[in-house]
Amino acid sequence: MIMACIQSFVVILPYYSKYQGTRDFAKEQMAIREKAFSIITEVFKRHGATALDTPAFELRETLMGKYGEDSKLIYDLADQGGELCSLRYDLTVPFARYVAMNGLTSFRRYQIAKVYRRDNPSKGRYREFYQCDFDIAGQYEEMGPDFEIIKILTELLDELDIGDYEVKLNHRKLLDGMLEICGVPPEKFRSICSSIDKLDKQTFEQVKKEMVEEKGLNSETADRIGSFVKERGPPKELLSRLKQKGSSFLDNASSKCALDDLEILFEALQNSKCINKVVFDLSLARGLDYYTGVIFEAVGTMQVGSIAAGGRYDNLIGMFGTKQVPAVGVSLGIERVFTMMEQLQKDRNQTARPTETQVLLSILGDKRKLCLAAELVSELWNARLKAEYVVSTRFSKHIDRARESRIPWMVLVGDKEMEKGIVKIKNIETTIEEEVPRTMFVEELRQRLNP
Amino acid sequence: MIMACIQSFVVILPYYSKYQGTRDFAKEQMAIREKAFSIITEVFKRHGATALDTPAFELRETLMGKYGEDSKLIYDLADQGGELCSLRYDLTVPFARYVAMNGLTSFRRYQIAKVYRRDNPSKGRYREFYQCDFDIAGQYEEMGPDFEIIKILTELLDELDIGDYEVKLNHRKLLDGMLEICGVPPEKFRSICSSIDKLDKQTFEQVKKEMVEEKGLNSETADRIGSFVKERGPPKELLSRLKQKGSSFLDNASSKCALDDLEILFEALQNSKCINKVVFDLSLARGLDYYTGVIFEAVGTMQVGSIAAGGRYDNLIGMFGTKQVPAVGVSLGIERVFTMMEQLQKDRNQTARPTETQVLLSILGDKRKLCLAAELVSELWNARLKAEYVVSTRFSKHIDRARESRIPWMVLVGDKEMEKGIVKIKNIETTIEEEVPRTMFVEELRQRLNP
Repeated sequence: MIMACIQSFVVILPYYSKYQGTRDFAKEQMAIREKAFSIITEVFKRHGATALDTPAFELRETLMGKYGEDSKLIYDLADQGGELCSLRYDLTVPFARYVAMNGLTSFRRYQIAKVYRRDNPSKGRYREFYQCDFDIAGQYEEMGPDFEIIKILTELLDELDIGDYEVKLNHRKLLDGMLEICGVPPEKFRSICSSIDKLDKQTFEQVKKEMVEEKGLNSETADRIGSFVKERGPPKELLSRLKQKGSSFLDNASSKCALDDLEILFEALQNSKCINKVVFDLSLARGLDYYTGVIFEAVGTMQVGSIAAGGRYDNLIGMFGTKQVPAVGVSLGIERVFTMMEQLQKDRNQTARPTETQVLLSILGDKRKLCLAAELVSELWNARLKAEYVVSTRFSKHIDRARESRIPWMVLVGDKEMEKGIVKIKNIETTIEEEVPRTMFVEELRQRLNP
Repeated sequence: MIMACIQSFVVILPYYSKYQGTRDFAKEQMAIREKAFSIITEVFKRHGATALDTPAFELRETLMGKYGEDSKLIYDLADQGGELCSLRYDLTVPFARYVAMNGLTSFRRYQIAKVYRRDNPSKGRYREFYQCDFDIAGQYEEMGPDFEIIKILTELLDELDIGDYEVKLNHRKLLDGMLEICGVPPEKFRSICSSIDKLDKQTFEQVKKEMVEEKGLNSETADRIGSFVKERGPPKELLSRLKQKGSSFLDNASSKCALDDLEILFEALQNSKCINKVVFDLSLARGLDYYTGVIFEAVGTMQVGSIAAGGRYDNLIGMFGTKQVPAVGVSLGIERVFTMMEQLQKDRNQTARPTETQVLLSILGDKRKLCLAAELVSELWNARLKAEYVVSTRFSKHIDRARESRIPWMVLVGDKEMEKGIVKIKNIETTIEEEVPRTMFVEELRQRLNP
């Protein structure tokens, strides 16, 4: 009947695709995502955060000048009249804009949302992807929020159970001090930092070439940088080496300030029993322009690439208002986490159920039995049970449906059952069938489902 | 120290705003949203749905030609090289594109996500807002999915507890038949439907004027339409009146087909005990071009305006592929729901807690005590308790923080307590303080929190 009613006019167009660099998620994949989001939300709430939801696009001027070289990856909305907007590039700038706009002096929030980058999708990068951010803005105990953010990062990665990882950590002011000591002119600090940031993928020789040939450093300065950036190790050990008498860091205002910060931070991390996940690494530079203090990046030790990153940005909120509010945050690149979780699930031979349906109501009869199905399945739904129904004369259709969706219970109703005033309850796993009174079947099922 | 480290260069820009027609959500408001989303997700899962997550933007050609007059409200992304994209206008077209692209023949999914409309924000409308959609695609029992979608709608509105409502219901083919009977030429059907759709806000005289003066109907045809569209009432009652011997609907193929559909649907809704929420209303027309069968709209009886709407669209998925897959769905306009929930919460004098923090660790001392705070608060976090900490010599600062955030428990630690190897546990409501051993405080708190 439905088919007979369909208008005969059908437009046949070429097979549609979606925009490259974006993805759809459904079924088993969504189940993994929901599990990850629930773990992450639980960790964030454990640290007193409230959720914040900001628009997917911001005024274009809000995003301008915050991302250094990466600004070219910002997606603009077409000018269709009205103000010019762009899709958010991260969740940090919208958070800073929100804090400033509302005149807040302290705020700790989490946000799980998509961000947009007009990157080359061929590299296995996506143009739309989720980030999970936690940020603390406000005046707190010195290095207190920095400590808590790193603690949160270790809790996230431990509880997501995605294998070994390390948190590489450095300080922007230590980098600045280092560059000053090496004789780099201040106007080249950011540009040289972005070269240093490539050391996780390139050899020092390659990076040196870039610094000398493209960025105009002399060779001795580059080598001096090279001798510093190879330093990495357990935080307290490396810190005490850098603070040894005669260290050039102690004579430099910027790096001295950074070392004092790090001393407090490492003490707190040690007492929090997560310092063993942290590696103090002088080659970590991080690209974004807005960082001002501690910076860090978590990498999987088995898998290549960054899983999470963050740092302190004390000047960003002030750019949007009149009040300067210091802040520190972490951003989890959840896409890599999903990939690792999916791989682990495959390795362990587990599969997630795509639905949570508990009961399949099987009406053995023809389509005129819809009204009977409606009556019985509504009783299940009204009792808050998760239920689907099928009306069909073919029993195989019913049992296939239950097995495919791994629905644990069936309620079988045919003419015979109706006459006798009963229904049959079938446990799919044990294949045991029981007859129960029609009036009692919801209660009987409820007891079996919530014993 | 932190402040001393901040770079002295601070950019002061004018006070930033966000794009008009968009909003930020935080704290109490977010708590209400999370509660609503959790109720809605629960209802959707109860009906065997899996979540689907599609990109926020689609290829522009995917959205073109699906929304009739509303197409002018689609947001385009700027042409920055590559394919042309637009922000999604609803969740139905992306769902249809997904089903076709993946060659599915049946799929029931829910999606809770933002959609984008370049509408005039001054009317209290927003340019970015959430929709909560449930759709069933595939060949099922005749009118089965239509029945289930309306049942879901009543469950949603009942469980969200936002006051009385009614579901206005009609059938596109009944409308088409009616227009044919009245003598409207087929090429004017959609245009006249969009006039009829205004009857919830305008008198028939106003609508008639539009039909005659702007759309070129003759006055008698318009009056004939007028006599039909004033029909509304309890579904089965009105249906049997429309099916009475001699009814012109019975001689018209399109409306006869619709009345047969509705007979099956109303029978199922009656057995499901939700037909009392439904009003059969011949003036309901709905704007979107893609509907082909049953259409409906839920309105609050106290509050003006549509809360949810949907219908059957049997030809949309076929537009994206080669297979025709019939489908029916409902979309909940959650923004109105939030407004009603917020109002109810105000009326009932309830306020939501913005955080879920259970314990405030109060370290009575100066900033050097951060490492002690880190140690103790980490024990709470590691035990999965939700905890924040404060280090301060001023007790008032601690108690204010606990009261402001309505944190139920405090752990007080000063020098005296440390010497004695104890901490004090304080219940904020009863103000009772107890001393417990330092080594036992997490366990003691856990018992009090999960008795």
